[in-house]
Amino acid sequence: MIFLLTDFGAADLYVGQVKAVLHERAPKVPVIDLLHDAPAFNVRAGAHLLAAFAARLPKDSVTLAVVDPGVGGPRDPVAVLADGRWFVGPDNGLISVAAARAAKAETYTIDWRPAQLAATFHGRDLFAPVAAMIAAGTRKAAKLKKRAELAVRLGAEDLGEVVYVDHYGNLITGLRANAVPRDRALVIAGRQVPYAQMFSEVPQGELFWYENSLGLIEIAANSASAQQKLGFTPGERLA
Amino acid sequence: MIFLLTDFGAADLYVGQVKAVLHERAPKVPVIDLLHDAPAFNVRAGAHLLAAFAARLPKDSVTLAVVDPGVGGPRDPVAVLADGRWFVGPDNGLISVAAARAAKAETYTIDWRPAQLAATFHGRDLFAPVAAMIAAGTRKAAKLKKRAELAVRLGAEDLGEVVYVDHYGNLITGLRANAVPRDRALVIAGRQVPYAQMFSEVPQGELFWYENSLGLIEIAANSASAQQKLGFTPGERLA
Amino acid sequence: MIFLLTDFGAADLYVGQVKAVLHERAPKVPVIDLLHDAPAFNVRAGAHLLAAFAARLPKDSVTLAVVDPGVGGPRDPVAVLADGRWFVGPDNGLISVAAARAAKAETYTIDWRPAQLAATFHGRDLFAPVAAMIAAGTRKAAKLKKRAELAVRLGAEDLGEVVYVDHYGNLITGLRANAVPRDRALVIAGRQVPYAQMFSEVPQGELFWYENSLGLIEIAANSASAQQKLGFTPGERLA
Repeated sequence: MIFLLTDFGAADLYVGQVKAVLHERAPKVPVIDLLHDAPAFNVRAGAHLLAAFAARLPKDSVTLAVVDPGVGGPRDPVAVLADGRWFVGPDNGLISVAAARAAKAETYTIDWRPAQLAATFHGRDLFAPVAAMIAAGTRKAAKLKKRAELAVRLGAEDLGEVVYVDHYGNLITGLRANAVPRDRALVIAGRQVPYAQMFSEVPQGELFWYENSLGLIEIAANSASAQQKLGFTPGERLA
Repeated sequence: MIFLLTDFGAADLYVGQVKAVLHERAPKVPVIDLLHDAPAFNVRAGAHLLAAFAARLPKDSVTLAVVDPGVGGPRDPVAVLADGRWFVGPDNGLISVAAARAAKAETYTIDWRPAQLAATFHGRDLFAPVAAMIAAGTRKAAKLKKRAELAVRLGAEDLGEVVYVDHYGNLITGLRANAVPRDRALVIAGRQVPYAQMFSEVPQGELFWYENSLGLIEIAANSASAQQKLGFTPGERLA
Repeated sequence: MIFLLTDFGAADLYVGQVKAVLHERAPKVPVIDLLHDAPAFNVRAGAHLLAAFAARLPKDSVTLAVVDPGVGGPRDPVAVLADGRWFVGPDNGLISVAAARAAKAETYTIDWRPAQLAATFHGRDLFAPVAAMIAAGTRKAAKLKKRAELAVRLGAEDLGEVVYVDHYGNLITGLRANAVPRDRALVIAGRQVPYAQMFSEVPQGELFWYENSLGLIEIAANSASAQQKLGFTPGERLA
């Protein structure tokens, strides 16, 4: 199975082009969109989202991960095999948090190049074909060359920042929930936010934090938008 | 075939997780997204949208329907077999309008529980596996227990409210078109809106109502946004 | 393979209905979404986007193309076979740019009609079944009648307008890049915009134009939104 995590925009005209390539090269492999609205140009946020997903992905799956503001620049294309799951994308830090948290990770430079490579769409022309080769069992064609480690490494640590705001207005952070005691209130945008296990424990409209379904700390409001209540500005840090 | 109707957000990171579960448990069953931007937290609007879709769905299909602001709270997970079509979701009224309008409906409590159940994502952990079991022909595993009726019932009647605003700015109501005479103007936000059969009958920019492709009354403007023209506020009622 | 290019809205409740029809009539044919947020009601912009995609589509593919503000009015449904690729949609100009640029194009009126045809959703009731018939190899059922040419023809020429703004804020134009010398600055909204090959060549936040992955001129800003920088109003022309 191939999973996609990008900042290409679910509604834009990029994902379909990637899927056409995947289907052409690996027609029998199902493709599932995890997220195409990762914060644009924000490699750090994408890296923490990808790491949260990583532990839940099936073994032998291949994830195409592209948040790549430096596309066409000098960063290498890489593939990482982390605890039995493949990740294909740019060596700009995006895959590095998932790799750092894996018990075992092997890193490869991708030496394969397409006949035509659009300077601004390596997702379609380079990463998608390589993801398809790996998923279809023709990995040799991708010319993977083993190397010691990724060039850009953001580390394995949690990130005390909002990494995604969903359409309910919930704020997903880069903090794993098992690292924070339940009796601790978080502070965001100057507001104290207490813990609750779920929405229905909290009065309508009240702010709380909880462990979301990816294992991350998320700040929400019962049947309301936490983003609106907090007047939240992206990039703001938690305390 | 499995259909999905939720308020998870088409662009957000939830639908992919649901699809990964469906594929794992029912790999040969195609999955089609009907709508993932049903109004958030609005069970009543979702119920009327689902009921409008229901009559058009193929027999033997399974629809996963989740608009569930009380997720993790006391409401039961249920499955309903209505006129040969399965619906799986929370017993909070969401499925009740479709059930009430069916000639024949059987209601089941779902007794199956997963090993791990995220308090805020029953869509992924409970409803998706059960929908997959039913669609894959292994319904017995879902531990369905027949019961008399749904706990929360919104009734079979039409709803004189806007239940969805599409990206054209068209306002879809919960009124079935065959209940309203064609020569009657509707009143919304203080404006009289006459009937027309289709867009091309109406001068550019003019408001009209018509029977939409789901059989519901929809208020539109030819090549313009009815929402902008009406300064429409969600929840406003029609007369 | 069936490709979809429409203004139905990726997040709205229309695309799923189209896919249900395609799956019912051509269950083995994969379906790929190219774009569902083509500018609403804007046939000209859609025609230039479709033409840019056309050259990249696989031979023998079928593209369902619907931007159809006159749906239900007098325009014909048509199918065009252009350089080995099928296009199905309304005869309102949408397919005409792709057809005019093809080395060889055959035009057909679609005489098939469904038992039930919603006045406002020919995409679901007429174009989708016909696209499925062609893709499934049962073209005869679609009752295609050869004719000399399309009724509405927008021509083969480039269009000096923005035809799409993506979620990064990049402005995609209807100008093919190979028609403009690299040393020429473009003028948009009163600003001079120079050429660059890729994002990483340009200082953070600076505007530039480049050849995008569809071969069109696109105006962008490195790690920023060109739309915000330009205070761009849709429809504005380039010089």
